[in-house]
Amino acid sequence: MIVLNNPKENVLLTALERPQLEQRDLSELIKEVFDSVRSEGDAALLRYAEKFDGFTLTDFFVKESEIFDAVNGLDKELKAAIAQAARNIEEFHTRQKEPIQKVETMPGVTCWRRSVGIDKVGLYIPGGTAPLFSTVLMLAIPAKIAGCKEIILSTPCNSEGTIHPAILFAAQLVGVTKIMKLGGVQAIAALAVGTETVDKVYKIFGPGNQYVTAAKQYAQTLGTAIDMPAGPSELMVVADESANAQFIAADLLSQAEHGNDSQVIFLTTSDALILEVKKEVHQQLELLPRKAYASKSLEFAKLIQVRQEQLVGVINEYGPEHLILSTQYDDQLVESITNAGSVFIGKYTPESLGDYASGTNHTLPTNGFAKMYSGVSLDSFVKKITYQEVTPAGLRLIGPIVEKMAAAEELTAHKNAVSIRLKELRENGI
Amino acid sequence: MIVLNNPKENVLLTALERPQLEQRDLSELIKEVFDSVRSEGDAALLRYAEKFDGFTLTDFFVKESEIFDAVNGLDKELKAAIAQAARNIEEFHTRQKEPIQKVETMPGVTCWRRSVGIDKVGLYIPGGTAPLFSTVLMLAIPAKIAGCKEIILSTPCNSEGTIHPAILFAAQLVGVTKIMKLGGVQAIAALAVGTETVDKVYKIFGPGNQYVTAAKQYAQTLGTAIDMPAGPSELMVVADESANAQFIAADLLSQAEHGNDSQVIFLTTSDALILEVKKEVHQQLELLPRKAYASKSLEFAKLIQVRQEQLVGVINEYGPEHLILSTQYDDQLVESITNAGSVFIGKYTPESLGDYASGTNHTLPTNGFAKMYSGVSLDSFVKKITYQEVTPAGLRLIGPIVEKMAAAEELTAHKNAVSIRLKELRENGI
Repeated sequence: MIVLNNPKENVLLTALERPQLEQRDLSELIKEVFDSVRSEGDAALLRYAEKFDGFTLTDFFVKESEIFDAVNGLDKELKAAIAQAARNIEEFHTRQKEPIQKVETMPGVTCWRRSVGIDKVGLYIPGGTAPLFSTVLMLAIPAKIAGCKEIILSTPCNSEGTIHPAILFAAQLVGVTKIMKLGGVQAIAALAVGTETVDKVYKIFGPGNQYVTAAKQYAQTLGTAIDMPAGPSELMVVADESANAQFIAADLLSQAEHGNDSQVIFLTTSDALILEVKKEVHQQLELLPRKAYASKSLEFAKLIQVRQEQLVGVINEYGPEHLILSTQYDDQLVESITNAGSVFIGKYTPESLGDYASGTNHTLPTNGFAKMYSGVSLDSFVKKITYQEVTPAGLRLIGPIVEKMAAAEELTAHKNAVSIRLKELRENGI
Repeated sequence: MIVLNNPKENVLLTALERPQLEQRDLSELIKEVFDSVRSEGDAALLRYAEKFDGFTLTDFFVKESEIFDAVNGLDKELKAAIAQAARNIEEFHTRQKEPIQKVETMPGVTCWRRSVGIDKVGLYIPGGTAPLFSTVLMLAIPAKIAGCKEIILSTPCNSEGTIHPAILFAAQLVGVTKIMKLGGVQAIAALAVGTETVDKVYKIFGPGNQYVTAAKQYAQTLGTAIDMPAGPSELMVVADESANAQFIAADLLSQAEHGNDSQVIFLTTSDALILEVKKEVHQQLELLPRKAYASKSLEFAKLIQVRQEQLVGVINEYGPEHLILSTQYDDQLVESITNAGSVFIGKYTPESLGDYASGTNHTLPTNGFAKMYSGVSLDSFVKKITYQEVTPAGLRLIGPIVEKMAAAEELTAHKNAVSIRLKELRENGI
């Protein structure tokens, strides 16, 4: 951990810089996989699953019976916990529905917009050490509320060809329509270009390693939308002397355990608190099963003391994915913060709550993207179509304005489309 | 114009395919310009303005006095028309504001989200034959409503080093904070990487030629957000025998005059109407100043007769940027349409109204992107930050759920962040 007490402006700015990740150029590999999937379809998917992941599959769609077994076999308490989290997430995202509001901008000129679910979406859930069923909830619940008709989930299976029952349970609970046992580049390629059995989707969501990220970026260049650019997860905790050092240490560690490249920043007005937090982190770290990951990312963790009047500036300059506030002036901070993904307010609101169950979405902008991107929400799964309907009386009011503007932009046919209608109204005495 | 009467499924699908645009590989040129702007700043901008556009500039920021002269010199009626259009656009986009709604997903667990304007945005307005002041309104008005602090507009000047007064008038009317006389790749580079005088922006909006489009795409790979992928403009008109052939012809021509590559599709249940519309198009075309452009794009225009029950399927398969409905069952169509940018309902609602003044935005998804992208709206200029605040009582309810889920995902530190707080509550008898 790197401690900075009242650093100068330039030192502070350097400390807040994200590390430049070494990015291998994967473009040739990605293009090869996409091209093969496009030309050979399922056969290419099966071949790559064997080549990259060591799975020999004959069929990559999860069967009803597999879901049935998973649902029956899963620990009851875990099922109840997942179901409650799903209800909270559903409640929060349902409230994001936008009612249709008809706006009469001029008498007889009525405009409105309507949200319509994206017909076909693909959700990618990474494999790896832990079964990320929480991400299934975070992506599939808003997709369902949005009215997406096809919700295709893809996740790699283990060496026995099976998927963790908690993922299958979560997927069936929230209405995923199809589950594929495919991981990595070939999964994204299947969703982006389609095969004889996989429907091409319009938008792909979900986290993943550098291969998945590069494949999503390539899919975007082909015209498939993606949720947002990806980067390592981040947490910034902001606290004053009223905060609890044990809690802060636990929060910093919850971020650090994600992986070697997790970004962990502690910002405080109190140098005493930095010492306490540091001590607590060392103590709590010892007991963690994922100590190896956490230690690595903690090496680069920054504990920074600044003056109270600097806090807002530093937060907004960094734009953290997750921001925990534990000060006596949280309310004031909340008002002034403009760049953050999700904010956790007060001593009893650890990031973990939002990661799993409070109701907010855990798919959030990293890498400073909070400056211009929102996290995933209901909005991410809909398009908003605009409508307008104009009466003859409305056209007589707005028509001359449009004629004037179109003429000034030298678009005569645009003007004519109005003039020809106004002429008809005059001729018919309407 | 290509006429298809009741085509077979495969012929119909082929007719609806967008032409594959020949895309020159501009990546080397774009990278060179971006690199030079990054290393040399304004000097590079001035050099490229001279090299690519033939402008010798010493200063590329528009001065107060230039705006003053433009505002005073511009035709009064045009100013009044622009001001009324601005009011309508403002009214419609203001109603898109989302009030903060606090949602208690469980007792003591409160979640909400807040929209915050993107601090710095760049708006690109192309030069060329006509001054696109309407696009200034469409981009700057929602930016202002969103609360964007810096709204930088860039547009190429003419050979005298000046910008059309209608663009300057529109820009000052709606609160653009800075105007730059820069076009093409160097304008996008300046906005994306910044120079000693130009602030790097977080998101770039606006139409442009293939250079501008490629530069925006490159900026996106560097971490600057862009409004949406670009493509040639499109109009689909859907009508039955109740429609007016003259109006339809005028609408098709208003789309065709945009440029050689404009997409024009007329879909109807009536073969008689196709013949009438065709005749009308030829007659009206003769009188257009932009006849050359319009004729070229009309060569590929499709006039298609289908059965009534096919209409919705064809519209949604194509996903037009602009859709005009003129049938006796417009209301039913509106309910069933899921893929379109903006819809114009009824005989007296030509596309021109939305292009300029009805209130809806004219920056819309082309190229079938209506399947997954919305047009520009207030949403495009904000990020939605989520918040949660949990009371001790709330934590006692939600805590065990999160502990269970975190343990199942094998993220022990996530679990600990909750457990350590629950323990403190127990110890303090809260």
